Amino acid sequence: MSESSPPPTTGPSTGAGTRTGAAVRRPRPTLSQMGLAPGKRTRLKRLLYDHGPGGGTLLILPIDQGLEHGPMDFFANPDSLDPKYQYDLARDGNFSAIALHIGLAEKYFHEYAGEVPLILKLNGKTAIPSDAQAFSALTGSVEDAVRLGADAVGYTVYVGSPSQDRDFEQFRRVREEADRLGMPVIVWAYPRGDAVAKKGGKESLYAIEYAARVALELGADIVKVNFPVPSEKDADSPPPYNALKLTAAEAFRRVVHSAGRCLVLVSGGEKMGDTELLAKVRASMDDGATGIIFGRNMWQRPRAEALRMTRELHAIFREYAQPLP
Amino acid sequence: MSESSPPPTTGPSTGAGTRTGAAVRRPRPTLSQMGLAPGKRTRLKRLLYDHGPGGGTLLILPIDQGLEHGPMDFFANPDSLDPKYQYDLARDGNFSAIALHIGLAEKYFHEYAGEVPLILKLNGKTAIPSDAQAFSALTGSVEDAVRLGADAVGYTVYVGSPSQDRDFEQFRRVREEADRLGMPVIVWAYPRGDAVAKKGGKESLYAIEYAARVALELGADIVKVNFPVPSEKDADSPPPYNALKLTAAEAFRRVVHSAGRCLVLVSGGEKMGDTELLAKVRASMDDGATGIIFGRNMWQRPRAEALRMTRELHAIFREYAQPLP
Amino acid sequence: MSESSPPPTTGPSTGAGTRTGAAVRRPRPTLSQMGLAPGKRTRLKRLLYDHGPGGGTLLILPIDQGLEHGPMDFFANPDSLDPKYQYDLARDGNFSAIALHIGLAEKYFHEYAGEVPLILKLNGKTAIPSDAQAFSALTGSVEDAVRLGADAVGYTVYVGSPSQDRDFEQFRRVREEADRLGMPVIVWAYPRGDAVAKKGGKESLYAIEYAARVALELGADIVKVNFPVPSEKDADSPPPYNALKLTAAEAFRRVVHSAGRCLVLVSGGEKMGDTELLAKVRASMDDGATGIIFGRNMWQRPRAEALRMTRELHAIFREYAQPLP
Amino acid sequence: MSESSPPPTTGPSTGAGTRTGAAVRRPRPTLSQMGLAPGKRTRLKRLLYDHGPGGGTLLILPIDQGLEHGPMDFFANPDSLDPKYQYDLARDGNFSAIALHIGLAEKYFHEYAGEVPLILKLNGKTAIPSDAQAFSALTGSVEDAVRLGADAVGYTVYVGSPSQDRDFEQFRRVREEADRLGMPVIVWAYPRGDAVAKKGGKESLYAIEYAARVALELGADIVKVNFPVPSEKDADSPPPYNALKLTAAEAFRRVVHSAGRCLVLVSGGEKMGDTELLAKVRASMDDGATGIIFGRNMWQRPRAEALRMTRELHAIFREYAQPLP
Amino acid sequence: MSESSPPPTTGPSTGAGTRTGAAVRRPRPTLSQMGLAPGKRTRLKRLLYDHGPGGGTLLILPIDQGLEHGPMDFFANPDSLDPKYQYDLARDGNFSAIALHIGLAEKYFHEYAGEVPLILKLNGKTAIPSDAQAFSALTGSVEDAVRLGADAVGYTVYVGSPSQDRDFEQFRRVREEADRLGMPVIVWAYPRGDAVAKKGGKESLYAIEYAARVALELGADIVKVNFPVPSEKDADSPPPYNALKLTAAEAFRRVVHSAGRCLVLVSGGEKMGDTELLAKVRASMDDGATGIIFGRNMWQRPRAEALRMTRELHAIFREYAQPLP
Repeated sequence: MSESSPPPTTGPSTGAGTRTGAAVRRPRPTLSQMGLAPGKRTRLKRLLYDHGPGGGTLLILPIDQGLEHGPMDFFANPDSLDPKYQYDLARDGNFSAIALHIGLAEKYFHEYAGEVPLILKLNGKTAIPSDAQAFSALTGSVEDAVRLGADAVGYTVYVGSPSQDRDFEQFRRVREEADRLGMPVIVWAYPRGDAVAKKGGKESLYAIEYAARVALELGADIVKVNFPVPSEKDADSPPPYNALKLTAAEAFRRVVHSAGRCLVLVSGGEKMGDTELLAKVRASMDDGATGIIFGRNMWQRPRAEALRMTRELHAIFREYAQPLP
Repeated sequence: MSESSPPPTTGPSTGAGTRTGAAVRRPRPTLSQMGLAPGKRTRLKRLLYDHGPGGGTLLILPIDQGLEHGPMDFFANPDSLDPKYQYDLARDGNFSAIALHIGLAEKYFHEYAGEVPLILKLNGKTAIPSDAQAFSALTGSVEDAVRLGADAVGYTVYVGSPSQDRDFEQFRRVREEADRLGMPVIVWAYPRGDAVAKKGGKESLYAIEYAARVALELGADIVKVNFPVPSEKDADSPPPYNALKLTAAEAFRRVVHSAGRCLVLVSGGEKMGDTELLAKVRASMDDGATGIIFGRNMWQRPRAEALRMTRELHAIFREYAQPLP
Repeated sequence: MSESSPPPTTGPSTGAGTRTGAAVRRPRPTLSQMGLAPGKRTRLKRLLYDHGPGGGTLLILPIDQGLEHGPMDFFANPDSLDPKYQYDLARDGNFSAIALHIGLAEKYFHEYAGEVPLILKLNGKTAIPSDAQAFSALTGSVEDAVRLGADAVGYTVYVGSPSQDRDFEQFRRVREEADRLGMPVIVWAYPRGDAVAKKGGKESLYAIEYAARVALELGADIVKVNFPVPSEKDADSPPPYNALKLTAAEAFRRVVHSAGRCLVLVSGGEKMGDTELLAKVRASMDDGATGIIFGRNMWQRPRAEALRMTRELHAIFREYAQPLP
Repeated sequence: MSESSPPPTTGPSTGAGTRTGAAVRRPRPTLSQMGLAPGKRTRLKRLLYDHGPGGGTLLILPIDQGLEHGPMDFFANPDSLDPKYQYDLARDGNFSAIALHIGLAEKYFHEYAGEVPLILKLNGKTAIPSDAQAFSALTGSVEDAVRLGADAVGYTVYVGSPSQDRDFEQFRRVREEADRLGMPVIVWAYPRGDAVAKKGGKESLYAIEYAARVALELGADIVKVNFPVPSEKDADSPPPYNALKLTAAEAFRRVVHSAGRCLVLVSGGEKMGDTELLAKVRASMDDGATGIIFGRNMWQRPRAEALRMTRELHAIFREYAQPLP
Repeated sequence: MSESSPPPTTGPSTGAGTRTGAAVRRPRPTLSQMGLAPGKRTRLKRLLYDHGPGGGTLLILPIDQGLEHGPMDFFANPDSLDPKYQYDLARDGNFSAIALHIGLAEKYFHEYAGEVPLILKLNGKTAIPSDAQAFSALTGSVEDAVRLGADAVGYTVYVGSPSQDRDFEQFRRVREEADRLGMPVIVWAYPRGDAVAKKGGKESLYAIEYAARVALELGADIVKVNFPVPSEKDADSPPPYNALKLTAAEAFRRVVHSAGRCLVLVSGGEKMGDTELLAKVRASMDDGATGIIFGRNMWQRPRAEALRMTRELHAIFREYAQPLP
């Protein structure tokens, strides 16, 4: 049986609510399996083992919403408008890394250098123009990342967008530069565009599983995905997706499986309640995710509350720790 | 509390008309906070402390209107059609710098070199074609700026334009070259395009605050913004902007806050009366602006009147002077 | 008579069903005839003689469907979702090479390096957006292929697409880099786009024969073609195609002839029954094909069945073996 | 008073018909004022003082109409179809330079090298497709000009065209290469496109004055302009142009003023009668033009007549001669 | 009188049918007149004097129709589908050169190297998509041509196409590389696009004469033109073309005249009868053409017939031989 076939379960799959824990955990790809060149391996090892919860897991704090959504996201917690808020949270909450664009890196990271690992997000856009032809232009380069001491770069691919060809081409250049300089690449794999909308939408399993596979095919080391949300719109997806009738957990397991030897980061999305959030994290880790990348769910909380939640996440992540193989 | 949270006030916020002065002043980012490489720091220090009003402030004279608006702007003061008028005014009025395009730099700056610091504007367009897809092509390069002895470069980003992706990409190249050569970058952050118009317009807080943040995210060192103008069109902005009901002064304070560690320059726009102008300057400086960039409000005045106004501005700026930290 | 005129037959052409075997076989181009530079010749010799069935034939396993079609293709055989399934099959079934994109190469090939020759597919797209302007952007480069130890690169040209000019230009750069580095180029020659649809469709002889010739003209070393499917839509093809009335076998022979000194690989397409598949292989080889590139017809089968089929294919290929000239 | 304010007149401005001569002449920019690097100054000095009428004037013969208009322009004088006709005329009529594209330079200039200075026109288009998106692609480079021994390059900017952004970008590259190699740049500043048509048309003062300023802003050393033609269409121009009511001479003076330290060349346009032509030249020179660039008005005449007219022009230009400052 | 004025005739122009032979022949440009750099002169001398009919003439065999038209052109003579047919014909018929794309060069030319001069065609397209925006992308480079030992490169310009600006830009790069490497450039000058259709069509004198001039202006060394075909559609051409009433021969003479110092190659087009073909050749050579480029008119004939026709052409060309000046 091949390495990533679904592992044996102790009973019929019953969704996230009734899982029986570590026994059904799907193994995460190891650094050795990933065939990494030394530079990538050095940097990924730092993120996975030397910072944050460690043990081969990732707890990442993104702060690219000021560009992607605008300052509106900071109203829920006015302190969060100042990027120092997130930097402090990343340091004091012992995150594996903080992920942000060049401006926030150049203007603030110097005060945290060596304390908080940096993931430089390399492309972005605003939410102002239409998403119909969604495409994120470059805001930085792999060389910027090297210069700043970053340990990975982030890149958003809009899978299915009419601009997909420009995106693939732009990503290729980033990927090649990252290969040359030994810089790990994290792909934000987001389905977008009219054709996606017509085939079940950007939250459908069809779209998200496809997006995860695209990240693997194009050369991502880590892929950030959203949880698929089964809905009646799945009926518009191509076969066999239009007839699958999976639970959300089963759907997510397919996504992880399709990502192959890319490490999977689960996206937080809009702010959730505590119980829901922690359940989502456990379910993700059980199904083979390597970690989470939660922004608004972290920094839209007041600092004390955010730090408390961070401690809870660390506790969970410890359960999933693995020694460096 | 993080560095840029709104400072304590001596009473409820009451708008620009009733402010009580230095006690409520918002601190400006310092050169040390900005994490500048030596070349950028050297040049910014010259602009902020060695020329113009000094003390960490900026008084900049732009003369790019001949390209952006056409010669029509010079009718109000026929002498102003000759670029020497503005150069002389910048020198004799002791401005921090003059900002203009390559042609006016190459043909005139040699007579003022060493006397008036130069900000080379790197992109522009005419007002003739429609602004629907607003995009300013490059007219010069950072290397031009270095060759000419400039102390900063200027770049216009049309935030929200359908051409935003080309703009981000073009800006990135400029920003990278500026990083490489140690040249400070000033972003003219202008909301533009249909989507902006539909979401409250280019003078809305939503649009201007977003634009200021974009400049920060993309790596500007200084951002030039317009004053937001609260209006009933704000009802079209996304939440929570559509329900904010802020005064103009409160709105501007948000913009400065969103710009983070970018120094903020306030734009003059169309010519105002003296009282209105000076009030605008004080309000801006109280709220954390580093300076102003007034063109038509300066050079559309006869020379004697413009010099008198300049002296008044210097007097105000002295109140906001800070020692080099 | 020129080298590639149709060879003498022992009787009237009667289609694939009644062919009389080796006597009517069309000769394949030899490496010497192809005018190859040493690097290309070294690599092609490895693929044609040192791996797989050998004797100047090619048996290639493609696994680019995860990108081109999405994970839906893996439902028929759930094990196939894990790329190791295909790698194992290529190794254990002794294929001439495996063909895939950069991500599957970087993450998995290191475990098979030296055992399974690699063909790096250099461009691709998803099936999500419309095919009306079909164009596959680059996902990798010839230098990637060299770095990974690949023996050839693959490139998809969408002949007849409105984006054909971008495609030709992009291919030219790949072809030049391949010439410079001695890397053989395999062209997936696919007719696509509205104009193709109006002239008989992408399965018409008109379109496929034209596509094969385009590959030859543009500098492919090997061309992958689909079997033309004669149909009443041929009436829409330009003369003389609209009046040809050829059997499928006669049509295929024209395609091989038009490919000139490009080696021809026959595409499998959707999964067929065993008898049909083996007949297709024999017919192709009789008519001058150098080999086959079967994906779903291989890895959508359970492993044991796929290996059995592979052994049958090897047996057939042995009949067509030729010594290295 | 600044250098380029309108000079004192001996009475109220009365238009070209009643001017009183040298007393009201507007001074031309000097090479020293223009801030030229040594290479540009060397080459401009050759054009302005060592060839043609000299004394700081320019008499230029363009022959780019074969590309811009097609051979139709040569019917009026069949001899003119052969480029040797224009080369001979430029040499025997002692023009300051001949201006043409790369093909006419490479194939004919070798017979005139050292005798007739060369201005290499770097971009162009045909008159066949619509002018709605007018854009002239590059046909040569500054390096071509250097290689051929040219003393300047010419570039057409279509101010106001929807393609203006591509044009500015392309021009910038030319301008930078010219700065690097010390090559003077002459801009053919032509208003074009729908928006121009809607705002008074390409012959309006609004459009031509704007175009002259754009040339100055973008870094031209010399600008070629057409004479504005006041008409009732000016009512469509933006204020204050829609209410100016200037004579043609007053309008032209504004254009020269707006060009600042760019030397101004007046365009001939369609063939005129002798009296009209000579009056146009005098008026232009009185108002600060540095010279003329007349094509059809020269080479559509029979050789003897063209040479006679050239002698008359030389006589006029001698009146405007100035010593090298 | 300038070099290329129409030569004196022995009587009124009477069209091709009644010409009186060598007395009215228009002289061809000489290599010295063309101002060629040594590399270009070396290669052109080989084509014009050392191969083919020689004496300063050109007899060229093109085989780019497989790309431009598709394999349909080979049905008339099935042997012609194999490129060896054309290579053999070029060698055995002693053509001046064979002209084809990179694929046919790389795969076949090695067997003819040193025997048949090579003209590498550098751009092309298929006939499948619409010609409305006709543009031929690059398929090879001047460096490819040098590497392969070619003596010239070919490039198709679609004069008047809406894509004309891309075409000019692309051609410029080819022309510059050819100048740098001393490689002669042959331009296939073809009018195309809607605007051409509206102005008399692609066979009108207006369009073809303009196209020939464009080739000269852009820097071609040799231009391939079609014969203009006077028709009533000429009434749609701009003046004076809409009223010219020329014979076909007179029209062709204008085309040659407009090409100036570009050598003119006459295109064959669709297959003609022998008498018509030979008359066309004589008429062309009388009017100043340097040679012919006949494809289908040669290789759609059976080999023996093609060779016979070739011998007749050689006999004609000998009449037009000139010693190397």
